[in-house]
Amino acid sequence: MTLRITILNGPNLNLLGTREPHIYGHTTLAEIEAMCVKRAGELGLDLTFRQSNHEGVLVDWIQKARETADALIINPAAYSFRSVALIDAMKALGKPIIELHVSNIHARDELHRHSITSTAATAVICGLGPYGYVAALDAAVHLAGGGR
Amino acid sequence: MTLRITILNGPNLNLLGTREPHIYGHTTLAEIEAMCVKRAGELGLDLTFRQSNHEGVLVDWIQKARETADALIINPAAYSFRSVALIDAMKALGKPIIELHVSNIHARDELHRHSITSTAATAVICGLGPYGYVAALDAAVHLAGGGR
Amino acid sequence: MTLRITILNGPNLNLLGTREPHIYGHTTLAEIEAMCVKRAGELGLDLTFRQSNHEGVLVDWIQKARETADALIINPAAYSFRSVALIDAMKALGKPIIELHVSNIHARDELHRHSITSTAATAVICGLGPYGYVAALDAAVHLAGGGR
Amino acid sequence: MTLRITILNGPNLNLLGTREPHIYGHTTLAEIEAMCVKRAGELGLDLTFRQSNHEGVLVDWIQKARETADALIINPAAYSFRSVALIDAMKALGKPIIELHVSNIHARDELHRHSITSTAATAVICGLGPYGYVAALDAAVHLAGGGR
Amino acid sequence: MTLRITILNGPNLNLLGTREPHIYGHTTLAEIEAMCVKRAGELGLDLTFRQSNHEGVLVDWIQKARETADALIINPAAYSFRSVALIDAMKALGKPIIELHVSNIHARDELHRHSITSTAATAVICGLGPYGYVAALDAAVHLAGGGR
Amino acid sequence: MTLRITILNGPNLNLLGTREPHIYGHTTLAEIEAMCVKRAGELGLDLTFRQSNHEGVLVDWIQKARETADALIINPAAYSFRSVALIDAMKALGKPIIELHVSNIHARDELHRHSITSTAATAVICGLGPYGYVAALDAAVHLAGGGR
Amino acid sequence: MTLRITILNGPNLNLLGTREPHIYGHTTLAEIEAMCVKRAGELGLDLTFRQSNHEGVLVDWIQKARETADALIINPAAYSFRSVALIDAMKALGKPIIELHVSNIHARDELHRHSITSTAATAVICGLGPYGYVAALDAAVHLAGGGR
Amino acid sequence: MTLRITILNGPNLNLLGTREPHIYGHTTLAEIEAMCVKRAGELGLDLTFRQSNHEGVLVDWIQKARETADALIINPAAYSFRSVALIDAMKALGKPIIELHVSNIHARDELHRHSITSTAATAVICGLGPYGYVAALDAAVHLAGGGR
Amino acid sequence: MTLRITILNGPNLNLLGTREPHIYGHTTLAEIEAMCVKRAGELGLDLTFRQSNHEGVLVDWIQKARETADALIINPAAYSFRSVALIDAMKALGKPIIELHVSNIHARDELHRHSITSTAATAVICGLGPYGYVAALDAAVHLAGGGR
Amino acid sequence: MTLRITILNGPNLNLLGTREPHIYGHTTLAEIEAMCVKRAGELGLDLTFRQSNHEGVLVDWIQKARETADALIINPAAYSFRSVALIDAMKALGKPIIELHVSNIHARDELHRHSITSTAATAVICGLGPYGYVAALDAAVHLAGGGR
Amino acid sequence: MTLRITILNGPNLNLLGTREPHIYGHTTLAEIEAMCVKRAGELGLDLTFRQSNHEGVLVDWIQKARETADALIINPAAYSFRSVALIDAMKALGKPIIELHVSNIHARDELHRHSITSTAATAVICGLGPYGYVAALDAAVHLAGGGR
Amino acid sequence: MTLRITILNGPNLNLLGTREPHIYGHTTLAEIEAMCVKRAGELGLDLTFRQSNHEGVLVDWIQKARETADALIINPAAYSFRSVALIDAMKALGKPIIELHVSNIHARDELHRHSITSTAATAVICGLGPYGYVAALDAAVHLAGGGR
Repeated sequence: MTLRITILNGPNLNLLGTREPHIYGHTTLAEIEAMCVKRAGELGLDLTFRQSNHEGVLVDWIQKARETADALIINPAAYSFRSVALIDAMKALGKPIIELHVSNIHARDELHRHSITSTAATAVICGLGPYGYVAALDAAVHLAGGGR
Repeated sequence: MTLRITILNGPNLNLLGTREPHIYGHTTLAEIEAMCVKRAGELGLDLTFRQSNHEGVLVDWIQKARETADALIINPAAYSFRSVALIDAMKALGKPIIELHVSNIHARDELHRHSITSTAATAVICGLGPYGYVAALDAAVHLAGGGR
Repeated sequence: MTLRITILNGPNLNLLGTREPHIYGHTTLAEIEAMCVKRAGELGLDLTFRQSNHEGVLVDWIQKARETADALIINPAAYSFRSVALIDAMKALGKPIIELHVSNIHARDELHRHSITSTAATAVICGLGPYGYVAALDAAVHLAGGGR
Repeated sequence: MTLRITILNGPNLNLLGTREPHIYGHTTLAEIEAMCVKRAGELGLDLTFRQSNHEGVLVDWIQKARETADALIINPAAYSFRSVALIDAMKALGKPIIELHVSNIHARDELHRHSITSTAATAVICGLGPYGYVAALDAAVHLAGGGR
Repeated sequence: MTLRITILNGPNLNLLGTREPHIYGHTTLAEIEAMCVKRAGELGLDLTFRQSNHEGVLVDWIQKARETADALIINPAAYSFRSVALIDAMKALGKPIIELHVSNIHARDELHRHSITSTAATAVICGLGPYGYVAALDAAVHLAGGGR
Repeated sequence: MTLRITILNGPNLNLLGTREPHIYGHTTLAEIEAMCVKRAGELGLDLTFRQSNHEGVLVDWIQKARETADALIINPAAYSFRSVALIDAMKALGKPIIELHVSNIHARDELHRHSITSTAATAVICGLGPYGYVAALDAAVHLAGGGR
Repeated sequence: MTLRITILNGPNLNLLGTREPHIYGHTTLAEIEAMCVKRAGELGLDLTFRQSNHEGVLVDWIQKARETADALIINPAAYSFRSVALIDAMKALGKPIIELHVSNIHARDELHRHSITSTAATAVICGLGPYGYVAALDAAVHLAGGGR
Repeated sequence: MTLRITILNGPNLNLLGTREPHIYGHTTLAEIEAMCVKRAGELGLDLTFRQSNHEGVLVDWIQKARETADALIINPAAYSFRSVALIDAMKALGKPIIELHVSNIHARDELHRHSITSTAATAVICGLGPYGYVAALDAAVHLAGGGR
Repeated sequence: MTLRITILNGPNLNLLGTREPHIYGHTTLAEIEAMCVKRAGELGLDLTFRQSNHEGVLVDWIQKARETADALIINPAAYSFRSVALIDAMKALGKPIIELHVSNIHARDELHRHSITSTAATAVICGLGPYGYVAALDAAVHLAGGGR
Repeated sequence: MTLRITILNGPNLNLLGTREPHIYGHTTLAEIEAMCVKRAGELGLDLTFRQSNHEGVLVDWIQKARETADALIINPAAYSFRSVALIDAMKALGKPIIELHVSNIHARDELHRHSITSTAATAVICGLGPYGYVAALDAAVHLAGGGR
Repeated sequence: MTLRITILNGPNLNLLGTREPHIYGHTTLAEIEAMCVKRAGELGLDLTFRQSNHEGVLVDWIQKARETADALIINPAAYSFRSVALIDAMKALGKPIIELHVSNIHARDELHRHSITSTAATAVICGLGPYGYVAALDAAVHLAGGGR
Repeated sequence: MTLRITILNGPNLNLLGTREPHIYGHTTLAEIEAMCVKRAGELGLDLTFRQSNHEGVLVDWIQKARETADALIINPAAYSFRSVALIDAMKALGKPIIELHVSNIHARDELHRHSITSTAATAVICGLGPYGYVAALDAAVHLAGGGR
């Protein structure tokens, strides 16, 4: 059966590649999506890839993934550090969740260092840059039992 | 005159009954709404019952209640623990407000224990499960001066 | 079978109605007891209603309620904020416990804001004024399975 | 060339003039907008003036200002104290930003005292009441190099 | 009219003179009572002087002073550092209260340094040794309007 | 000369064996007293064994032990975590003191983890269950110089 | 009537333009004074402009402004972060006070980020560079009721 | 031999009677000095009474008191809360020191509540209003061994 | 050129598979090493795989990797939470470093939640179980520029 | 069957008797070992007694005790306060563990007061001096089920 | 060219030798100055040696050293722990700065342990007693490039 | 008699000169040792100079210095910030100890700023670069009473 993977991207990630490139690099979110589509093709996955600046929309989408995905990859960006609403939605998902950050948040400033949503994830990958999305796809397949 | 009561429900409460039932129980939000409608009927109340995952929508609705309600019952869920925007909207309401939680949040984990919106409520009820909604309706009538 | 409810009141509640009325209102504890007796009569309850300034006496009474009550309503007043002894007694009760505060403690000063006994309660009601006792009786019946 | 200034207002500012007037005064947001329009006319500015209760909408608008404004004036209101998403959007703007508060937040209660978005602003003005908007317009012209 | 002054002493003060004399000195509580009786005689006061190790008893006595005293002098000893029950009783007294400590608590160890009951006192005197009781009597007369 | 040992038990220990047995085990306080009486007989000790829920009573008893005991064993239970009055009484004792806990408090929840009375004890034993009382008796003999 | 404005500058501001120019810029305090004199002329103000490295001197000058000024503009520099004496003097002034900082202190290091004197100001302006002095003059006129 | 007492007053106390009278009352420092001179006459004391807004001047005067006083009474005002320099000077005095506050600082706001200079005083008196100066003179005589 | 990867394992990882399997699973370190050897073979890597309980030995090995590896994968286990020595060694490496944890440490207890060594890593992977080692190998190749 | 008990001693305990004797007394570790050997003989135990200054060596030895001991007594000394590696090794032991301290650490300075390894022990004994080793041996027999 | 060294001494250092000699020793500041003059002679230095109790004066002198010294040695004494004004002056100096303390402040009480001015120094020497001044002179020569 | 000085260097100092040279400079540890040997020759000292990455080894060496050194110079590097074991060994030495850091740790990041081993040193020197070793040798001679 085809594994269904949903990738959600949080606030300001639509600016990737143009925003603070010394931290986030020069790859755009569109390019990352293309990398993911390509890798999903190789792995035979059914991929959903979305971005929103709205906390409530991300909560809606995580809830929707209860029906439409076998595993979730989420880069909550700024909401990682504050959103209990995301935590609750993630805890209600009942599927493997990989939290992803492009930069190594642990080496950043005080406001961007302590993800609270990590407490509701199955696994966390950070600091691998755009490649982290590919690694997360591979890992999601692993966690969702899809073999390799 | 008919008392008008607005009941607002915050993020992920639409999952009630299916999400972490060891904490929140098995009653769904639809069943709770039915209980409220029934009780409102007994008390002769004009009831509004809504749910949203969006902090901004909840703020909009609280503002709207300035015109359309005599008392507010709100279960802010995850936004209880973080949202100054809700606090400001609640402080601007000028009507009795009952904050409601299905579980006893004071006995939960660090992230779900300290409601800051409580500082802007008239009263708080927590830990009574779905029955808390009925108790809150009774209390709202009391606070809004509707007798009993 | 008749439900037995014990209501315990902590330190300085015997001054209710005369002490800091801008916070606690003008209703005396005797008047509240009368309200409770009346409501217990309507609900067919066997009611015990007591007050003490002594932490140890309150612990004694909670222990006694293991034998003599089906549910406990307790307004621990000042001991809410400090007493681990009350917590331990409440945890040992094995019956539903409703913690009650006349004022909304969450909106008060630093010393009167953080109840630690709440962690050992089943449910918490605060900010409803004297009416809170009536609401607590109704809720205790609910929790103790007495229907309504 | 005409300087383009965007003024964004956060949650509950649409209630200005009616909400807690002992803190925020009696001037409405519409009246403030009129003051700004008048001043912008005097200064020859192209002015955008908006308000939203939604954090995500504010993020969207700040992102949009990357294309449509030479300087940003933002009164983040309640989101000042919590929103890392606003911070990230502000840091990505690459234009002068003036954070504005009607009241002197530093003299307020604990929940309304520590703006974290200030860390991403160029300048901060608070406590000048509605006049602060006019002062911010003047200052924005100065920061954006429009002379005076 | 004769001024009525109540002096209450908290836990372990009955050991004064024998307990940690390097901190509290060698004067016994009986000797201090004698000093107070003598000074009260000179000032024409009606003096009550009591000691208890029980927090609840001290609360009872403070409540009683509402009827029987024009001013209260209290050395809460260990309860200074923890008892919200004493604070509430003191706040309900409605008479001048002088909190007294034999040693300068501010120069002591962490557990004996921060009196919370001071927040409910009119005045505080500490570090004057047994003489502090005499000074407190003089001051109580002053505060209670008894002239000198 | 016969060594005199006083064993004091704090609040809720009268419920031992019935209260939270997953933490405290199934042995009752009466059974523990019997174990102590037996061991005291073997060691030729004059034993006093008491329990109270009242902080003030425990202070009274510690003070009394200044005259009637050569060493003190105390399980302050809940008062371990809060009572400066017990600390002061213990410091005034002038005899060896063994603080005892049935469970390993250091591995428990935040409210039951940090004994402040330990700072006034000579030695501390915890986590040995009811056997801890026997070990404490042996150790008290050692500390009081009674040989073995 | 001519409005009288006093501008006070705290420690090390006499080094402005030469000290840490990456933070404070290259404009000297003399140049800023000249800008203020010019603007005061345009606004018809009676201007006093002073600088001192001495906390006590600044307190003296604020006290003096009770008689000689209609509004105060103060850049307390380093004393912003520590001086309760300045706070008390500012609170005793009874005139509008604008606290001014050349840099955006909220974006600086821990030691230079939390102004405590802001709690005693009417308004705060920071991050506008030398132009902030001009903006503060305009605002002082506004606050002191001098129109524009 | 005549006892020599120095009374030092810290910053802003020269405004006493006019500054925040709801906290400090309406008596001026000159009137207090007169009260002290009168009381010193009755007690046969050699009195020095001074005020300064300068921390360094207060340090100078405390050092001078090593030669010219038998006891020191000091109202450090705002410097109570911050000045380690005063602490060091007080510790070096080698004479009894009474720290004095007109208001009960323990009941004030966070910035005016925690005196650190108290750690270097012999005794502390606060909350007695202007009468506190008289009480301090009496106590200084007692501490300096001058009998009464 | 053959990429050289060093994998270092910290204290108690030699017990993997037998220690707290509800957290760490049942796979032994030998089995993980075999997985890594297999994957390294597929990727054409020169692999070093070691384990030590000694902080100093781990520091020695990291230093050695300056000469013998192109990238480092390290599971510092318990030393993650305390070791500044590891941080310094990692910072001196000058090669990509992937910090790896078998469990999602962010969801664990207070003592095992805050890795400080993460601040010196390039990337962090946690919560993927033994598969994390394979993912880390893939990622190390990516970071070290070895293509795929 | 012979019970096997391992006693491990942490850093600087080899200096016992010569190091800070006012805290640790004058008995050397060799003398303590002799006491233990004697007591083990009386109890019929197979005793291992070791000391190391190396955290890693202590971890090695605790791991080894999984095969060679029925109970562990450990005095982690300085590593009590910092070592998560010891905690993990202790948690993996699966045998009763008694943590032992010669002095009452709870009454010591901030750096030597909070043992974190206690969270992984079965029981803790401190403050009994060298006799604590004997008491621990007795208790280990009890915990390991060897009767007495 | 002759190296110019300024040595500044903060509050209460004029009492050196007479104040708390168990901490600071018996050498007076005059004797230390003599030692410095002697050593400066040997090294061919132009020495300035001053002391003040006034924070503002010290700031003035540090500013002056911008013109008149090649390196600064400063013992800020009590101002080390609080003065941001000194920090700012030191940061503006642009010359090597050695902060000096006679005692080892790191081993002192909480109020005298955390120097904040150290953050603005080039180097720090403490605990060497009066000899520290000589060592600082040698080091200042080294830092200022004067060889030896 | 020849003074014996031991110099111990902690983890990663063997990388000096190559590791983070912007912080630690370009001088290698071998070059520093040569400087020390030269200076020891001039001063007629018997010098031991060692480095280890192992905390336990450093403890061993400090213990050994009890027999073989008259003073200890130690650069604990990363262990400064965490090691209670080093503190205990240093306290047991009974000889003067100079703690040395090449950089001014007080101006570094949070993890490298607070040395706890300083509490057990006689004196501390930091920020003087490699020259600090020479200064420490001179100071050690001074402290050990070797004159100069």
